[in-house]
Amino acid sequence: MYRIGVDIGGTNIALGLLDEELELKDSSSIPFQRGGERVAARIAEQVRLMLEKAGAGVEDLSCIGVAVPGSIDPAGETVIHAYNLDFHNEPLRMRIQAFFPGVPVALANDADAAVLAELYKGALQGCKTAGLYTLGTGIGGGFIIGGRLFRGGRGNGIEPGHVVLVDGGEMCTCGLAGCVESYCSATALIRQAGRAMTAHPESLLHQKTAGNPASMTAKLAIDCAKAGDETALTVFRTYVGYLGSAIASVMNMLDMEVVAIGGGVSGAGDFLFEPLRLDVDAKCFFKNHGSVVPAQMGNAAGIVGAAMLYHNACNG
Amino acid sequence: MYRIGVDIGGTNIALGLLDEELELKDSSSIPFQRGGERVAARIAEQVRLMLEKAGAGVEDLSCIGVAVPGSIDPAGETVIHAYNLDFHNEPLRMRIQAFFPGVPVALANDADAAVLAELYKGALQGCKTAGLYTLGTGIGGGFIIGGRLFRGGRGNGIEPGHVVLVDGGEMCTCGLAGCVESYCSATALIRQAGRAMTAHPESLLHQKTAGNPASMTAKLAIDCAKAGDETALTVFRTYVGYLGSAIASVMNMLDMEVVAIGGGVSGAGDFLFEPLRLDVDAKCFFKNHGSVVPAQMGNAAGIVGAAMLYHNACNG
Repeated sequence: MYRIGVDIGGTNIALGLLDEELELKDSSSIPFQRGGERVAARIAEQVRLMLEKAGAGVEDLSCIGVAVPGSIDPAGETVIHAYNLDFHNEPLRMRIQAFFPGVPVALANDADAAVLAELYKGALQGCKTAGLYTLGTGIGGGFIIGGRLFRGGRGNGIEPGHVVLVDGGEMCTCGLAGCVESYCSATALIRQAGRAMTAHPESLLHQKTAGNPASMTAKLAIDCAKAGDETALTVFRTYVGYLGSAIASVMNMLDMEVVAIGGGVSGAGDFLFEPLRLDVDAKCFFKNHGSVVPAQMGNAAGIVGAAMLYHNACNG
Repeated sequence: MYRIGVDIGGTNIALGLLDEELELKDSSSIPFQRGGERVAARIAEQVRLMLEKAGAGVEDLSCIGVAVPGSIDPAGETVIHAYNLDFHNEPLRMRIQAFFPGVPVALANDADAAVLAELYKGALQGCKTAGLYTLGTGIGGGFIIGGRLFRGGRGNGIEPGHVVLVDGGEMCTCGLAGCVESYCSATALIRQAGRAMTAHPESLLHQKTAGNPASMTAKLAIDCAKAGDETALTVFRTYVGYLGSAIASVMNMLDMEVVAIGGGVSGAGDFLFEPLRLDVDAKCFFKNHGSVVPAQMGNAAGIVGAAMLYHNACNG
């Protein structure tokens, strides 16, 4: 039997044909074009092509999972909003289901899919209680509780990035002041580095950006810190302290086995993880707290996680 | 059938005989005296007396639950530390079990018992995902996830009070700076009111404490705010803001159905809950977030929750 994972983005739709061990047997990518009906029809076409290529048929499919960058209704039927896709109250699950009668089709948010990918194939394998924080423009991710994706007590999903870290601090895009996202996202690191650069014209940070905060990137901030620039190092250490506080908090709150960190910032590798682990260790209430590790699934997270959506919904 | 709930405190041991609907049919209290063997023997004696009085026997007991103010091993066998009781690696469950062969005996932390009391008889009835925060000297309480007591992913239990609220802020007793406990406990309110009193000799707060911070209590701070004292009102509003941030954070993190607030501070009633609900509402990510309510079980929480320990451990 095969599984299909579909990862819909604002530029491309990525599809994967996986076996039951979640090995990717084939993949394809098509440009995203607007409209729910069109998206469903083009996904169906690609699925049939991949099956054909594998010498298989629809009867060999155990499920199709679809990940979308947007909010999904609790029943998993409708994309409430996916602004990058211009989807609003789009009944996408049923549209795809219509092409594949008898095959379970599941729909979820791409952050949820990423958590499942880490659970079944990546850094959170075997965990009953764990978290994924994806540090990018915002903070994505989610939690595993009881060995399954935790979708929130009221079906709203969860927002681990919108938890207060510095009450009354930096304004967050959500309207709350001092969220984890406004201190620990890549965007936050860029802002912190931009300010320090402006205040320190002698710094390597300043030199590399020609004094223009708009040229700042998270990678540049990290590279300057790695190069030993004092200004960049101070920024980076402060950032690690914020992130350590956020992770220690969730360790204390849920006694997690593992917290995985993904997204661009996690590409800093040991330069991030070594001081981060020391910081978390110093701040955790429980001396035998869980571990902090890099996420493993990268770009494949959407496809692999989507392929496990139906499984996760059905199995304890 | 009857259940027995036992709530061991440093001064008294409270016992209750409950029916299957968790109605308290009889209760008793004996002074606490040190020593695990003695405690177990005296509990057994009281249980037999209560059963006799009710015209019942050991065969009519469905379970015995024991709540202890200390840390319990994940297996629920041993009190690792209960400093007020001078219990250290005390195998209390087995000692009590020895008196009642065939009757399930369960042991847990008193904060866990309080959560179960609210779940089965109080403010969290019917909830699948909910929290209890008890605002006292520290912050106790815990979470219901999946309709059952959540004991932490690694069996450490959880510490919702030791979650960062103001990174780098007030030092907490746990060694972490800026915990929820160091801003939202009764102790924190007392500290905040004491500082404001010292800075405002013209205030009612100052008058009522004769300028002595050691005379400050949470009730006094709240009473002065209720009386319209500007200094006390400023303290109270700031405190409500901290508490609102802590509750909004856990709502955003777990999408809780209900967060119940107990402990002395919650005795302020609507004077606390009305502004607190407005604050939480303004800060929650999800517009249809859960509710914030007073805890209901008060002093009975230990006995009632203890009586449900075995049930919660066995039933989904």
